Amino acid sequence: MTPFVAEILGTGILILLGGGNVANDILNKTKGNGGGWISITTAWGLAVFAGVVVAGPYSGAHINPAVSIGLALAGLFPWAEVPTYIAAQMIGAMLGSFLVYAMYKDHFDATENGNLKRAVFCTEPAIPNNFRNILSEIIGTFVLLFCVFYFSEAEINDSSGTTVGLGSIGAIPVAFVVWGIGLSLGGTTGYAINPARDLGPRIMHAILPIKGKIDSGWSYSWIPIVGPIIGASMAAVLFMIL
Amino acid sequence: MTPFVAEILGTGILILLGGGNVANDILNKTKGNGGGWISITTAWGLAVFAGVVVAGPYSGAHINPAVSIGLALAGLFPWAEVPTYIAAQMIGAMLGSFLVYAMYKDHFDATENGNLKRAVFCTEPAIPNNFRNILSEIIGTFVLLFCVFYFSEAEINDSSGTTVGLGSIGAIPVAFVVWGIGLSLGGTTGYAINPARDLGPRIMHAILPIKGKIDSGWSYSWIPIVGPIIGASMAAVLFMIL
Amino acid sequence: MTPFVAEILGTGILILLGGGNVANDILNKTKGNGGGWISITTAWGLAVFAGVVVAGPYSGAHINPAVSIGLALAGLFPWAEVPTYIAAQMIGAMLGSFLVYAMYKDHFDATENGNLKRAVFCTEPAIPNNFRNILSEIIGTFVLLFCVFYFSEAEINDSSGTTVGLGSIGAIPVAFVVWGIGLSLGGTTGYAINPARDLGPRIMHAILPIKGKIDSGWSYSWIPIVGPIIGASMAAVLFMIL
Amino acid sequence: MTPFVAEILGTGILILLGGGNVANDILNKTKGNGGGWISITTAWGLAVFAGVVVAGPYSGAHINPAVSIGLALAGLFPWAEVPTYIAAQMIGAMLGSFLVYAMYKDHFDATENGNLKRAVFCTEPAIPNNFRNILSEIIGTFVLLFCVFYFSEAEINDSSGTTVGLGSIGAIPVAFVVWGIGLSLGGTTGYAINPARDLGPRIMHAILPIKGKIDSGWSYSWIPIVGPIIGASMAAVLFMIL
Repeated sequence: MTPFVAEILGTGILILLGGGNVANDILNKTKGNGGGWISITTAWGLAVFAGVVVAGPYSGAHINPAVSIGLALAGLFPWAEVPTYIAAQMIGAMLGSFLVYAMYKDHFDATENGNLKRAVFCTEPAIPNNFRNILSEIIGTFVLLFCVFYFSEAEINDSSGTTVGLGSIGAIPVAFVVWGIGLSLGGTTGYAINPARDLGPRIMHAILPIKGKIDSGWSYSWIPIVGPIIGASMAAVLFMIL
Repeated sequence: MTPFVAEILGTGILILLGGGNVANDILNKTKGNGGGWISITTAWGLAVFAGVVVAGPYSGAHINPAVSIGLALAGLFPWAEVPTYIAAQMIGAMLGSFLVYAMYKDHFDATENGNLKRAVFCTEPAIPNNFRNILSEIIGTFVLLFCVFYFSEAEINDSSGTTVGLGSIGAIPVAFVVWGIGLSLGGTTGYAINPARDLGPRIMHAILPIKGKIDSGWSYSWIPIVGPIIGASMAAVLFMIL
Repeated sequence: MTPFVAEILGTGILILLGGGNVANDILNKTKGNGGGWISITTAWGLAVFAGVVVAGPYSGAHINPAVSIGLALAGLFPWAEVPTYIAAQMIGAMLGSFLVYAMYKDHFDATENGNLKRAVFCTEPAIPNNFRNILSEIIGTFVLLFCVFYFSEAEINDSSGTTVGLGSIGAIPVAFVVWGIGLSLGGTTGYAINPARDLGPRIMHAILPIKGKIDSGWSYSWIPIVGPIIGASMAAVLFMIL
Repeated sequence: MTPFVAEILGTGILILLGGGNVANDILNKTKGNGGGWISITTAWGLAVFAGVVVAGPYSGAHINPAVSIGLALAGLFPWAEVPTYIAAQMIGAMLGSFLVYAMYKDHFDATENGNLKRAVFCTEPAIPNNFRNILSEIIGTFVLLFCVFYFSEAEINDSSGTTVGLGSIGAIPVAFVVWGIGLSLGGTTGYAINPARDLGPRIMHAILPIKGKIDSGWSYSWIPIVGPIIGASMAAVLFMIL
C-alpha cells in the first residue's frame, strides 16, 4: 500500500466512523438517537484508532493536513510529500462522508431539520464568534499536535538499544488524546482540529442531493481550516524551541 | 482445546455477554434498564474482547463466519476448515443465547413487548429497506475485516527479528474497532456484522418457549447473513489488491 | 508485602472504589447522583484494575474467594493458602466498605430510602427467585474465572523463551472482563461474582450505626456466596477437561 | 525540556482538558452541556493521560504537588526539587485554567449561575463539612498515591534483567486510576486530590474579570490543599512500612 492509498483509506475510515456516529446520534429513527456528547467523542476517538491502525504502517497515519503540516514544520516529515498527503486526506474524507450518506440516507430523509443533516458532515460553532471560534480550533489542534510530538515509543532499555513496536496497540494514545480533546475542548466549535475532516465532508454536503438540505455553511468554513493549521504550527514551533 | 471447541466457547461468550447486555438494557425490571446505545456498544466491544481472549490462542478467535470466509478468501486461512469453524460458531451462538434466556427469563416474563424480547436475540432494521440495510451490513463488516487484516503484531526491531506477543492485551484492538463500528455504523440495522451472531440466536428465539413471543423475523434474516459475507469478501479483495 | 497484606489492600481498594461509586450514584446530593449502570459497571471495572495493580505482584491479586477456590481446584494455587487468602479478602472488603461509609456518611444521612443505603454495601436481586438468582451468579462468575484461566501473558517468541511482563498494563484484561460482565450479566442480581465483595460489606452494614437502615438482607446472603463458588468450580472443571 | 518546563506543560494540559470538560458540561449553550459525571470523570482521566504523556519522559510527570511530596517522603524524589516542581505545577494550572476561560468565554457570558462559573475553576463540597470533606480528599489522594507507588514497569524476565518501556502506553494505568477515583470517590468534594489543580485555577478565578462571578470560595480552599498532602503522606508512610 502506498502512503497515498493509506492516507485515503485511513482518513476514509476516520470520517466514515466519525460522521457515521454523528448520523446515528442526531438523525431521526436511528438506534443510537440521542447518544449525546459522550457517544460522539468516544466514537471519534475510536474512529481515529481504526484509521491509524490501517494507515499507520504505510503512511504514518497523519489522516489530517494539520498533522502533515505540523510534522513538516518540525522537520519530521518532508515538505515535498505534504501536498500528496493532503490530497489523499481530502479524497478519503469525501469518500468517507459519501458512505455515511449512502448508509444513513433513509434517516436523512426521515429528518426534517437541515441543521442536523449538515452537522453530520461538518462543524458549526455553538456561539458564532470568529475570534473565539478560531481560538478554539487553535487550542484543540495545538494539544493534539503537541501530544503527538511527545508520544514515545516502547523500547527495551539495554545495551543493544532495540525498539519494541507495540503494533496496533500503539494507536491507543492518539485515540485517547482525541477522545479527551473532544470531551474537553470540543464544546465550542465541535472540534474539527483537522481541515480535511471538515472541508471534505462540507464539499460532499454541497454536492450531494440531500433532501431538504440547507446551505453548506461556507462563511464559517475557513475557520476549521485556518485554525488547525495555526494550532499545529504553534505546536511545531514550541516543540522545536523545547 | 481444539479450534472447534475454542470457536464454540469464544462465540458463546461473545453472545452471552453481548445478548446479555441487550437483555439488561431493554427488558423490564433489570438493573441496567434504559442503558442506551453507549451501553450496548460498549458491552459488545467487551464481549468480543472476552471471546477473543479465550479462543485466540487456540483457533485465532474468528468467532464470526464472515471473518473465517474473509480470511480464507485472502489466503490466510484454509478453506477446508471454514465449515468446521462456522458450525462451531453457530453452536456457540446458540448456546450463548440460550444462557441469556435462562438467566434473564424472569425479565422476559416481566416484559410485554415482543419486539423487545426478540431484539435480545437478533437484529432488526430501524427503517426496513432491503438495499440500504444490506449496504449497512456490508459497510460495517467491511470495516471490521479491513481493520482485522491490518492489525499488526508487536515486534522487536532488531537483527534477530523476534516477535513480542502481547497476550490478552492483544485482544484490545479488535474490541475497540467493534466498539467503534457499533457506535458509528450500528444505527441503521443494529450491526450484526456476523452471520452467526444473528442466525444462531434467531434460531433459539424460534425454538425457545418464550412467553408472548412474536415471529422470529425470518423475512429479514437473510440480510445479516449475506451482507456480512459480501462485506468481508470485499475487504479480502481490496486487501489482496493492495 | 506479604500475600495476606496484599489481599487485604487489593480487596480493600476494590470495595472502596466499587462501593464508593454505588454511593456516589444512588445516595442523595452526591456529585454523581443518577450515574446509572454504565457508571456503576465502569467503576467496578476500574476498581478491579486498581486492586490488581496493587496486589498483583505480591499475591497474584485474587481479591475474590471464588478466584482462590477456582485456582486451587484447577491445581494452580495451593489449597493450604486458600483460608488465609479468604480471611484477608474478607478483612479488606470490610475495611473498604467502612471507608465508603465514613466518606459518604453525610450522604447516607441525607438519603431516606433504606434500600438504597443497603445497596451501597451488598447486592439484592432485581426479581427475587432463588433458582434464577443463583444461576445468574454462577454464570457471571463462570465467565470471570474462565477468562482468568485463559488470560495469556505477553511473551517473546524467540529461541530463548523469555517472557515479557507488561507490569500494570497487564491488569487491563481482567478489568475489561469484569466491566463486560457487569454490563451484560449484572442486570439480574447486581453481579456479586465474589463472596467477599458481598458478605464483607453486608457484615459492615449489620454492624455500622447507619441512620434509618433496614435489615441486612441475610435471607438472600447465601446466594452471592454459593453461586460464585459453584460458578468458579465449574470453570475450573471445564478448564481441566479442556 | 527541563523538568520545570515539563511540569508546567503537563499540568497545563491537565487543567486545560479537565477544566475545559467541566466548562463543556455545565456552561450554557456548549455542545456537551449536561454530560454528567461520567463525562467529567472520563475527561479528567484522559487529561491526566495527556499530561503524563507530554511530561513523563522529562519530569516523571508528577503534575500534582501531592505526588511530589509523597514521592519525596518515600525517598523516591529529592526534597530539594519539590519547591521547583510545585511552582511549575501552580504556573501550569493557572495557565491551563486561563486558556479554558479564554476559549469558553462566550459560554461564561451566556451562563448566569455564578456557582457553575466557579465550578469550572475549583472544587466545592456537595455537603459542606470540614471533617468529612477533608477525609474525602485524604482518601482519594491516598488511593491515587498508593496505586502510583505500586505501578510496576514492564520487564523482560530473563537473565539479562532488561526493562521494556511501554512508551506512551505506560500512561494508561494512572489515567485509569484517576478515572476510577473520580467515579467512586469524587461524589462528595469533587475530588481535587491535587492542590495545584484546585488552588491554581481558584487564583485565576479571583483574578480574571469574569462577568457575574461570585466569591472564589477561599474559606473552603485550604481543604483541597491540606487533604491531598495528608493523604499522600499517609500513602508514603504505609508504602515504606510495607
